[in-house]
Amino acid sequence: MKKLINDPRHVVREMLEGIVDISPALALLEDENVVVRADLPEQAARPVAVLSGGGSGHEPAHAGYVGDGLLTGAIAGDVFTSPSSDAVLSAIRATSGPAGAVLIVKNYTGDRLNFGLAAELARTEGIPVEIVVVADDVALRDVVEPARRRGLAGTVLIHKIAGAAARKGHSVQEVASIAREASAALGTMGVALGACTLPGASKPGFTLPENEVELGLGIHGEQGVSRSPLSSADELTETLIATLADDLGLKDGARIALLVNGLGATTPLELAIVGRAALAALRQRRLQVERVWSGNYLTALDMPGCSLSLLRLDDERLALLDAPATSPAWQPGI
Amino acid sequence: MKKLINDPRHVVREMLEGIVDISPALALLEDENVVVRADLPEQAARPVAVLSGGGSGHEPAHAGYVGDGLLTGAIAGDVFTSPSSDAVLSAIRATSGPAGAVLIVKNYTGDRLNFGLAAELARTEGIPVEIVVVADDVALRDVVEPARRRGLAGTVLIHKIAGAAARKGHSVQEVASIAREASAALGTMGVALGACTLPGASKPGFTLPENEVELGLGIHGEQGVSRSPLSSADELTETLIATLADDLGLKDGARIALLVNGLGATTPLELAIVGRAALAALRQRRLQVERVWSGNYLTALDMPGCSLSLLRLDDERLALLDAPATSPAWQPGI
Repeated sequence: MKKLINDPRHVVREMLEGIVDISPALALLEDENVVVRADLPEQAARPVAVLSGGGSGHEPAHAGYVGDGLLTGAIAGDVFTSPSSDAVLSAIRATSGPAGAVLIVKNYTGDRLNFGLAAELARTEGIPVEIVVVADDVALRDVVEPARRRGLAGTVLIHKIAGAAARKGHSVQEVASIAREASAALGTMGVALGACTLPGASKPGFTLPENEVELGLGIHGEQGVSRSPLSSADELTETLIATLADDLGLKDGARIALLVNGLGATTPLELAIVGRAALAALRQRRLQVERVWSGNYLTALDMPGCSLSLLRLDDERLALLDAPATSPAWQPGI
Repeated sequence: MKKLINDPRHVVREMLEGIVDISPALALLEDENVVVRADLPEQAARPVAVLSGGGSGHEPAHAGYVGDGLLTGAIAGDVFTSPSSDAVLSAIRATSGPAGAVLIVKNYTGDRLNFGLAAELARTEGIPVEIVVVADDVALRDVVEPARRRGLAGTVLIHKIAGAAARKGHSVQEVASIAREASAALGTMGVALGACTLPGASKPGFTLPENEVELGLGIHGEQGVSRSPLSSADELTETLIATLADDLGLKDGARIALLVNGLGATTPLELAIVGRAALAALRQRRLQVERVWSGNYLTALDMPGCSLSLLRLDDERLALLDAPATSPAWQPGI
């Protein structure tokens, strides 16, 4: 499988070098694959640092969300591989002042372990650190307990909310609490039309029959909840929205934000058709869609497919989503 | 080939309905596939309308660039098919006041014909119309005369420049002249790693051997200048930059903007690696890169590959690129 790369072993470092070369507001740590804001104030004056990361291959997540009002830094593991606790600790040290840091971690074993260990080590150095675990996957709701749900594209909205809360000057406990409440009000479910191919690999990770899709597939190609015949975009979207609305217990008049996320190789043409169907399905349920994002926000390399995320809103949460933010990949909601 | 669509015959209309449903600042004409700004001032007070369009399948072009300081409207043909002259004329009528309209047309026979005919008809109705043809393809430089070069992704930068010039209150002749000068200072060249698949089609339009790429491929899968072995991202990027710099006659110290454009299925990881190589190749030539855009700005459905565009800058052109603009897909240059 052809890719525009040099050596597959160096794709992550070279990608991050490219990102910071293009964006003077970002800097790359010399010894670790960690991107941080280049314009941080001196240590004592820093607000709570908001950090996230995980395996690479989800671009623009996570480095694309580093910037004023969003992430203070992003830690990049190898493709689909958790970053080391050393890398996370380096990110905490490089970005945190006495106000401490909040780590936003997608719910995968490796990430929880390595971010958790780094947080412990940072605390022994006197840096207050809180961890927020995002587990927005609703696909496996009938299969696994809520604590084992995976972190998916909705995590990007939690980045934004936590980043805005930190920028307002909230304490590390307050930022974590606001982000945890938002995570509890968040659901995501995806549909994949095929697999993705790792850089350097000769073929995709699995094959789906030409007439099947996989519902609830994970962002690393992990198994979903079921394989279904390929139906129309309207029908697939209705299935996703029905599951999300049910899981979040959304009732008449509930205020929500919608994220239509492309998984990599899905065209904007298809995303717009899915977005049209999603808005119709939400209106039919008399839900108030107050903001929409549509685009590739958290991908799975070149996987064809998309996910939909719904987030319950109140005035405070909406204000945090709307607060100004500058990063390479963030776009204001519409 | 699976796609997230309903009926292949309705993909363009449903896509446009989705785009305007998500973006309240945009409106869709009832009888034609034309997206216009929803907040246009009354006819007599309108600045020069800037319109563009062409076949669909290049999203976010063109509807994604409709907004304040950018396009006033976008005309969408069927996938990879020129819009009718009726549709173009409807767009002109819907958006133009006495100041008239500038049509930005990519250099394809069908587009030139239909936009040209619509311009003639509009002029007979008393609407001043100027046409700017963008032919930024440098791949076929040794094969075809300059007037037969194709319009490629660099066209997006011409949209921005013309939109900003119109917003400043320039006349229709002035806007056209500024856009034509910019087009003459623009070059684009791409590399494709494979073909794209039309919605409803069972397979991609052509196949490339597993170890080959096509240099200079067009945005509809038209033939390029040569097939080459798949080499490293750094080598491919050097080939593109060398051709562009030579074609534009760029000398030591020349001021330029760089657009790294994904053709659809190329991951941001790969685009960042290409961006890194492009900046290095430009610096080695002592060219001054003043702005960079990187992302999917003008695509060819789900084609894997990318194009690089270079645009010569002076203070006036840079100011027009930097001028404020709001549209779903435009991002400020970095």
